[in-house]
Amino acid sequence: MTTYDIPTEQWAQVVEAPGGPAVYKKIPVPSPGPDEVLINVKYSGVCHTDLHAMKGDWPIPTKIPLVGGHEGAGIVVKKGSLVADDIKLGDAAGIKWLNGSCLSCSFCQQSDEPLCQSALLSGYTVDGSFQQYAIAKAAHIARIPEGVDLEEVAPVLCAGITVYKGLKESGVRPGQWVAVVGAGGGLGSMAVQYAKAMGVHVIGIDGGNEKGESVKKLGGSAYVDFMASKDLVEEVKAATPDGLGPHAVLLLAVSEKPFQQATEYVRSRGAVVCIGLPAGAYLKAPVFDTVLRMITIKGSYVGNRQDTAEALDFFQRGLIKVPYKTVGLSQLGEVYQMMEEGKIVGRYVVDTSK
Amino acid sequence: MTTYDIPTEQWAQVVEAPGGPAVYKKIPVPSPGPDEVLINVKYSGVCHTDLHAMKGDWPIPTKIPLVGGHEGAGIVVKKGSLVADDIKLGDAAGIKWLNGSCLSCSFCQQSDEPLCQSALLSGYTVDGSFQQYAIAKAAHIARIPEGVDLEEVAPVLCAGITVYKGLKESGVRPGQWVAVVGAGGGLGSMAVQYAKAMGVHVIGIDGGNEKGESVKKLGGSAYVDFMASKDLVEEVKAATPDGLGPHAVLLLAVSEKPFQQATEYVRSRGAVVCIGLPAGAYLKAPVFDTVLRMITIKGSYVGNRQDTAEALDFFQRGLIKVPYKTVGLSQLGEVYQMMEEGKIVGRYVVDTSK
Amino acid sequence: MTTYDIPTEQWAQVVEAPGGPAVYKKIPVPSPGPDEVLINVKYSGVCHTDLHAMKGDWPIPTKIPLVGGHEGAGIVVKKGSLVADDIKLGDAAGIKWLNGSCLSCSFCQQSDEPLCQSALLSGYTVDGSFQQYAIAKAAHIARIPEGVDLEEVAPVLCAGITVYKGLKESGVRPGQWVAVVGAGGGLGSMAVQYAKAMGVHVIGIDGGNEKGESVKKLGGSAYVDFMASKDLVEEVKAATPDGLGPHAVLLLAVSEKPFQQATEYVRSRGAVVCIGLPAGAYLKAPVFDTVLRMITIKGSYVGNRQDTAEALDFFQRGLIKVPYKTVGLSQLGEVYQMMEEGKIVGRYVVDTSK
Amino acid sequence: MTTYDIPTEQWAQVVEAPGGPAVYKKIPVPSPGPDEVLINVKYSGVCHTDLHAMKGDWPIPTKIPLVGGHEGAGIVVKKGSLVADDIKLGDAAGIKWLNGSCLSCSFCQQSDEPLCQSALLSGYTVDGSFQQYAIAKAAHIARIPEGVDLEEVAPVLCAGITVYKGLKESGVRPGQWVAVVGAGGGLGSMAVQYAKAMGVHVIGIDGGNEKGESVKKLGGSAYVDFMASKDLVEEVKAATPDGLGPHAVLLLAVSEKPFQQATEYVRSRGAVVCIGLPAGAYLKAPVFDTVLRMITIKGSYVGNRQDTAEALDFFQRGLIKVPYKTVGLSQLGEVYQMMEEGKIVGRYVVDTSK
Repeated sequence: MTTYDIPTEQWAQVVEAPGGPAVYKKIPVPSPGPDEVLINVKYSGVCHTDLHAMKGDWPIPTKIPLVGGHEGAGIVVKKGSLVADDIKLGDAAGIKWLNGSCLSCSFCQQSDEPLCQSALLSGYTVDGSFQQYAIAKAAHIARIPEGVDLEEVAPVLCAGITVYKGLKESGVRPGQWVAVVGAGGGLGSMAVQYAKAMGVHVIGIDGGNEKGESVKKLGGSAYVDFMASKDLVEEVKAATPDGLGPHAVLLLAVSEKPFQQATEYVRSRGAVVCIGLPAGAYLKAPVFDTVLRMITIKGSYVGNRQDTAEALDFFQRGLIKVPYKTVGLSQLGEVYQMMEEGKIVGRYVVDTSK
Repeated sequence: MTTYDIPTEQWAQVVEAPGGPAVYKKIPVPSPGPDEVLINVKYSGVCHTDLHAMKGDWPIPTKIPLVGGHEGAGIVVKKGSLVADDIKLGDAAGIKWLNGSCLSCSFCQQSDEPLCQSALLSGYTVDGSFQQYAIAKAAHIARIPEGVDLEEVAPVLCAGITVYKGLKESGVRPGQWVAVVGAGGGLGSMAVQYAKAMGVHVIGIDGGNEKGESVKKLGGSAYVDFMASKDLVEEVKAATPDGLGPHAVLLLAVSEKPFQQATEYVRSRGAVVCIGLPAGAYLKAPVFDTVLRMITIKGSYVGNRQDTAEALDFFQRGLIKVPYKTVGLSQLGEVYQMMEEGKIVGRYVVDTSK
Repeated sequence: MTTYDIPTEQWAQVVEAPGGPAVYKKIPVPSPGPDEVLINVKYSGVCHTDLHAMKGDWPIPTKIPLVGGHEGAGIVVKKGSLVADDIKLGDAAGIKWLNGSCLSCSFCQQSDEPLCQSALLSGYTVDGSFQQYAIAKAAHIARIPEGVDLEEVAPVLCAGITVYKGLKESGVRPGQWVAVVGAGGGLGSMAVQYAKAMGVHVIGIDGGNEKGESVKKLGGSAYVDFMASKDLVEEVKAATPDGLGPHAVLLLAVSEKPFQQATEYVRSRGAVVCIGLPAGAYLKAPVFDTVLRMITIKGSYVGNRQDTAEALDFFQRGLIKVPYKTVGLSQLGEVYQMMEEGKIVGRYVVDTSK
Repeated sequence: MTTYDIPTEQWAQVVEAPGGPAVYKKIPVPSPGPDEVLINVKYSGVCHTDLHAMKGDWPIPTKIPLVGGHEGAGIVVKKGSLVADDIKLGDAAGIKWLNGSCLSCSFCQQSDEPLCQSALLSGYTVDGSFQQYAIAKAAHIARIPEGVDLEEVAPVLCAGITVYKGLKESGVRPGQWVAVVGAGGGLGSMAVQYAKAMGVHVIGIDGGNEKGESVKKLGGSAYVDFMASKDLVEEVKAATPDGLGPHAVLLLAVSEKPFQQATEYVRSRGAVVCIGLPAGAYLKAPVFDTVLRMITIKGSYVGNRQDTAEALDFFQRGLIKVPYKTVGLSQLGEVYQMMEEGKIVGRYVVDTSK
């Protein structure tokens, strides 16, 4: 059996007070409880949520001091006494937004652990993946299949799982059509690829030619440019062969308008799935049309553990490509600054060894 | 084989110009086409929709001249050459809102005939049940089981089927909880009874003590009076044993506010089903909460043919009681006047023989 | 916070060698691990499975020495350090067949913990409820609602949950028809009551007038006596209003024949659900008929944790009555003897204090 | 509007007495009823069922004299007075096994028209596609999308739809695994392609290297050769990444054994779907294992109208290739002879103009 030399100190990015900043410093390596594992994080994706956590501008307060990060890919180096035999030291594993849950409430009992009221959130209510050694509940770690590159997979651990979950929640079946709003962005480009891998046709919706080319290249069947379109609703409907509109819509947008427009072009009996979280945004739809066309509007949060395993399986088979750029963990502050300035295209990954 | 003497003329209530009124007069008895039946209507329920049709105040124009009515119960007296053998002269049959549909489009192929873009609507785009002899597409008539009283069943043919469909669409299972908003009204009292017959617990929501007593009497497990409540959201949640709120909400209200409030008290992963159609009303819900709690909001229109058969089966077994009052077809104008004045409690039924 | 004086020794029925017998003797009280609770068992139902476990005549070997029993109702008196706050000392709790599972494999992740390959089985692979103090994994105990009688609820913890699960697996909806084969027996009488509480019509199938009267009394809509029937298949079909047969069949029989006959009378598109386990029995059905009538045959094992909570909720509301007789734990041997002689009607419960 | 010159006589293959043979002769061109269309059949696939129909060796008797054939692709040349506007003269259309159904019974109401007890079967209870002009109920014709080659699509109209339906019935989702038994045959090769297009992994099961190469070429992930395998059950399970076996099995085999073996290698909670119809074959499975592993066994018959549209859509997109050979309608007897001698690889298509 493999064993690991675990240091007593490690490098981490620590938010010491609400509002930030994150400070790159040495802190002690934590020790896992009986139902936990210690993961030597190699790479971690950086997400907008991490910026919100540092700034403390969301309604729910974070742990302080806080180590952020929830897209961590690494190696299991220590495990608690109760951890099942199928997790071995040396296994590749991921730290997700959902660090743990009670596994016992009515939501957990029904595989809806993201709705658990005692859920632990990585990089928010417990320390996350912006450190070299992080703790996670053993039953919740993402099992990264053998042969998967830890650097590449990091951004899948949140963004990929989330859009895959949304596609499942939409009820869209192979051969049907889904519109992806924000198809040219980070989440959107993964959604296009997951949908295609599931045999689903994609209508990408976003702004500008460049994003349109990206959508087509990733396998989208059609693209509607909201900046150029004279009648977005009609164009989206016209993109489906019978003109009745897509069977589902995935809302990954960061502004409110698309959330109020999607019910106009979705097919009767279709589903509009909200995933993006524009600050303060509201859903809005006329009751009359919603009833007579029997439209469904629903929210989809992060995936559960089974969704995680499935989303990683698609990735492992080479069906999902994520454009990313890697910098050292010590440079996290620079990534946050680019994020605030809206200068990021694709995803950033931090290497914890630098 | 039974045959019927069919007169050439009959009494009817005819709207001769948009805006009304309905005129009680003699008109010719129509003749069914090859795929149609002629029904000798004995009784017809009167619905708010009939008043809207007469006044022509909805966005979609009606047929003119128009015979209204879409809750007609009667006897099949003539059938076209293509009508299947399982419909016999003398059978009891109902005329529903959905008089016919193409049975061939993608919606009809998937049992969603209410979404058919060529649907014929009784008392709106084709003549309805406010006459002694009415036409319906054979494949769409409600098959009224033997032994069912035609007078009593009339209001079930629209209101009953609609609330039953909404309960099915909500996904609520026996043993779970549903909140019915407007539980003391005509549709609401049927919804309470259907839910109970399905093994579902009901939280009635409405205004005033009298309605609360009605809800309890019909089998509701709890009642929340929005006129008396200090915190409706908390009270509805507290009415469920674990305090997490009902698994589903049925919105039968005639004002907009409940449509924007229901997502606050529905359980995470629960469904808010819109059925009522307050003029100009909008759904509205915060994106953040909808996503994180994975809430579903959906519209439910009238039932399909299978829903109709099922809803009638519950009625036949004596599980659904509908309070109604019967007057002659000639008095329809008086019923409309009471309706406009908001003076109607329960449902009115017209007897076509008077 | 309540605390309990826990003795070091207790009375138990111990199987010391494969084949039995069970010996009534004093053994040490075990101590719960970090994710476990210690339950002071007050009452335990006795099931045929317990007899099989003692005799060691099933293919899978039991633990030796073994304390049997898997329908235990008692009080939580001690809990491990990881047990969530929602389980409190003094809570009423049940020990089920499924004592624990890994909560981490693909089956557990999808709420199918009974299919977990590392499942712990009470009274089979771990010590069960035929002792005064038993251990269970905290996440798996049945939460017995307040006010429920521990003596009455004991037999529900296996038999009740199992038939309720079968009804869910059958897909039968309120208003539809289910045939229950073995409706007059212990499981059958619970199945009839659960079905009725779910708004489902029951056709009881069993042998003899007495069982027929029991079925009718518990709310069954029809009864077919296989001992008296000249054509069982036709009679079962004729018991449904349209003569097309029941939408589902629950097989609780202890002989093989009904398992091979049920596909003949189930409705096209219907489901035949196997629950009973006659030794060495086989399912058998003609391929031609199964395909052309699109019939489903499926197995249903014990319920998961959510099924348990739901089944107990129906019981708590007084909808399920179970006939039982109580004797002292010391008399277990006599119960086994009656069981072997086929002399038991209803269920036996043992009181651990005697 | 296009009109067509319709001759009064046409060439057809007519079975004049039970047992055959089919005689190539001139017969009158039939005239469509009000709800029917007349299709100028251009090509028709030849299926084993056609041979059975001619020989009259199935339990249900055929029409006599009989024109066989149920995979006909042609052009609508005449339509009845009730046929909806969306069917136009000149439209490409297919004649399927299901020529028509009542569209009104409980099965038709629930989109299960193949289970309609009044269904009309092409080339069996009504004349089929082995003639130049055939009748079909307008609501049931397959709508062949523009641009689709009529010769190529003919075999899809039965074989393709049937395997696509089976995949839907299996409940298998994108990313999961299905075993196809008989993967190297006519139906099997289509099943492999449909599964792949739906994002599903295929384990092909068949005999011989050649079939294995075909499975791999069409996109199968694994192949198990039952002629070479020492332990088929273990090999099939080992072909899935976690060794737990495929989520579903499609049985297209023409012998009985695989129908009794599939439950051994399907994953717990998985579904075994029967499609093939070996004469006199029985399903058989141990009750114990079926219950404890919660296995589902079900029959899947031909697709409904919606399945038809979906299966054709996959074909239109070029995802399904069917190897076939075309001969003149006059040569049908030779095709039957090869069929009886087991000499046919792939499908035969007849050209009605020769």
